[in-house]
Amino acid sequence: MEIKQYIKENESRFLEELFSLIRIPSISALPQHKDDMLACAERWRQLLLEAGADEAMIMPSQGNPLVYAEKRVSPDAPTVLIYAHYDVMPAEPLELWKSQPFEPEVRDGHIWARGADDDKGQAMIQAKAFEYVVKEGLLKHNVKFIFEGEEEIGSPSLNAFLKEHKELLKADVILVSDTSMLGADLPSLTTGLRGLAYWEIEVTGPNRDLHSGHFGGAVANPINTLCSMLAQVIDADGRITIPHFYDDVEEVPAAERDMIAHIPFDEKKYMEAIGVKALKGEKGYSTLERNSCRPSFDVCGIWGGYTGEGSKTVLPSKAYAKVSCRLVPHQNHEVISKLFVDYINSIAPEYVQVKVTPMHGGEGYVCPISLPAYQAAEKGFTKAFGKKPLAVRRGGSIPIISDFEQILGIKTVLMGFGLESDAIHSPNENFSLDIFRKGIEAVVEFHKEFSK
Amino acid sequence: MEIKQYIKENESRFLEELFSLIRIPSISALPQHKDDMLACAERWRQLLLEAGADEAMIMPSQGNPLVYAEKRVSPDAPTVLIYAHYDVMPAEPLELWKSQPFEPEVRDGHIWARGADDDKGQAMIQAKAFEYVVKEGLLKHNVKFIFEGEEEIGSPSLNAFLKEHKELLKADVILVSDTSMLGADLPSLTTGLRGLAYWEIEVTGPNRDLHSGHFGGAVANPINTLCSMLAQVIDADGRITIPHFYDDVEEVPAAERDMIAHIPFDEKKYMEAIGVKALKGEKGYSTLERNSCRPSFDVCGIWGGYTGEGSKTVLPSKAYAKVSCRLVPHQNHEVISKLFVDYINSIAPEYVQVKVTPMHGGEGYVCPISLPAYQAAEKGFTKAFGKKPLAVRRGGSIPIISDFEQILGIKTVLMGFGLESDAIHSPNENFSLDIFRKGIEAVVEFHKEFSK
Repeated sequence: MEIKQYIKENESRFLEELFSLIRIPSISALPQHKDDMLACAERWRQLLLEAGADEAMIMPSQGNPLVYAEKRVSPDAPTVLIYAHYDVMPAEPLELWKSQPFEPEVRDGHIWARGADDDKGQAMIQAKAFEYVVKEGLLKHNVKFIFEGEEEIGSPSLNAFLKEHKELLKADVILVSDTSMLGADLPSLTTGLRGLAYWEIEVTGPNRDLHSGHFGGAVANPINTLCSMLAQVIDADGRITIPHFYDDVEEVPAAERDMIAHIPFDEKKYMEAIGVKALKGEKGYSTLERNSCRPSFDVCGIWGGYTGEGSKTVLPSKAYAKVSCRLVPHQNHEVISKLFVDYINSIAPEYVQVKVTPMHGGEGYVCPISLPAYQAAEKGFTKAFGKKPLAVRRGGSIPIISDFEQILGIKTVLMGFGLESDAIHSPNENFSLDIFRKGIEAVVEFHKEFSK
Repeated sequence: MEIKQYIKENESRFLEELFSLIRIPSISALPQHKDDMLACAERWRQLLLEAGADEAMIMPSQGNPLVYAEKRVSPDAPTVLIYAHYDVMPAEPLELWKSQPFEPEVRDGHIWARGADDDKGQAMIQAKAFEYVVKEGLLKHNVKFIFEGEEEIGSPSLNAFLKEHKELLKADVILVSDTSMLGADLPSLTTGLRGLAYWEIEVTGPNRDLHSGHFGGAVANPINTLCSMLAQVIDADGRITIPHFYDDVEEVPAAERDMIAHIPFDEKKYMEAIGVKALKGEKGYSTLERNSCRPSFDVCGIWGGYTGEGSKTVLPSKAYAKVSCRLVPHQNHEVISKLFVDYINSIAPEYVQVKVTPMHGGEGYVCPISLPAYQAAEKGFTKAFGKKPLAVRRGGSIPIISDFEQILGIKTVLMGFGLESDAIHSPNENFSLDIFRKGIEAVVEFHKEFSK
């Protein structure tokens, strides 16, 4: 049976299987969801068995367990290791969702739910393409699956897991569907990723909240101080001011900048889609360079003092921020993490106490387009989307991709099917049914090509 | 009966009465406490009647009702109007309280609870001094009470109430116990107060929370932007940068600066008490000048992005701050409010949308020490505390004090008995029982002196 026909006949089952995963709120950032993590892992184990794996099991780690499954065709055949993650981001702010984040809805040809794309929907593409090639006897190589439950919190346990299970995870290439394309009509494969470093900053002023009338003007306010410190991290040219921050940043080669300049990109539409009147970034670089090949600094969260209704006059004791840098290949996240901690401590005024806690991090990654598996993926996209995909660097981070390379010695091909409009990590995350179908086709084609 | 003896015999009843008020969480900032506001007003009505008022009633306003009570001695006698407020600040952060904020405890000679000082405890001093002078037949002037329920949210309804009830509230002087002294052994009367202006700032970047990997570096982050704007409000010399902000600020006269310099003040102990290693404020002024005679700018609260456990990488859509300025006499809060809104709008970059909402405000105040009622208060303090109180300006704001002057044409004497260590507006608010007793004595003496 042709893959298009197979999808048609089985789509309602595919969606029911996906929805059964989405309904489990496997939010790794929140400890109250521990049971959901187990339930979600177990559901994947069942689904991978049903899809055609010889065996599938839950494997413990220092944190949430991982799901491992495999289909062995021949000891002489090459092996593809498919990585995905079953955890999702928190759904807050809940009031902005048009439908419940953990009760998937199909509207306007899209699935709406937390995890619809990232990464339950994309992982389901891999599972269903696998099911088809197994069922049709098209699979000529071994396939292994490893699905983790801590990607959204920086995969704190994966590193040790990879080291412990190097033999089990042995493969020729890793396949990951967790990135996005330039557009529904602009298929692309990700050949570069940014790294990440993340910190929490705690600023303590007085030892208790003070009356801003009695103390205001004489005692430093930790929120004012935190704001001043954060304001210093980026200068007027949009450059990060941390000393030695750019030391290892490779300047984007002229050829690549030229290629980026030729990517069809409508800055006006980009601004309209996110509702801003102007863009802001590092001087001397285009928007597409800024969000993929250049590092960035963002305050991801800030809080302190009175944040309830109405007005409370207070000079608070504490202020907090969660901040992160996106890094580019060659920037070591541990080096950057230390540079940042040192920098913040160096600009911390004596009238407050400042504590900077590194949270997690990961390196950037580059995939050579000469890799046979990359070329198989390219053919898969070409077949499914009707045009050759562009090779582009993206701004997101999958820190573990460089861990795969360093620990397992395996290159990764990023066959991601997301779109910017999928709103991953945001309210109203969604995934196009049309892309979902094409994704399955593309991965089926990858398997066929990779075996040649 | 002597007042000391009277207090001794009745103290357990006084405390039970005070505790019955404290147990009602009359938090004006939170709408879910509407019923508590009514209950607290009603409790005060009963207590003032029991203390000796001829009549007491609940009077409606545009917001929370007010309690009015009066004792008419003679139409020819002067009248003292006693103002207090029955509302309290929110008790957050709750986890820092050693005992429940709304379940008063007596430990180490102090009452511990929200409102123990501000203003239930201090208002109770007035009520019990009144009870004594009535019972002992010492009262030679008329007394009126007006207790409002919106002081902690800026008394939004009081202005209209004063205009409507000018005749009813007619008096020769207003007496308020809602300020603090320099120390338990350093009695003082407040002769000046700072004004206040308060705003909420909302900064909107993209129309939804974005993935900081896909957009970071290319799209302005509203938290970073808010921090940069707030950091600009105070310069390196601790001066507020809002254009024309200092236009109406009267430089503190040399004689007053000299008096302030002679107030016994241990800066080291001050820093130790609030747990800071250094102080920060406007260049060229001392700590006591900075927190009483000079304006200030504080961020009272800030929030935006992900503030939960763990780390979420997000480029948020919104960031918020609650900010306030303490003002000095002659600075008009409405003028300052407009200057601030204009300033923030003028520095708001084009890549975000900024909305500044004025919340409330009030003028500063100065009380002449030649006022007979001031001198009666001075004698009251001298009798109760064994030394003449210092006349000092304080940094807090009671915006309605200048409204009393402007609308009712009446000067106010601020007989406040608080201490910095009372931690008003903070966790573990408390009030010394010793001061409570001395306060009653001082006010009794005021009544005796004022009649002369």
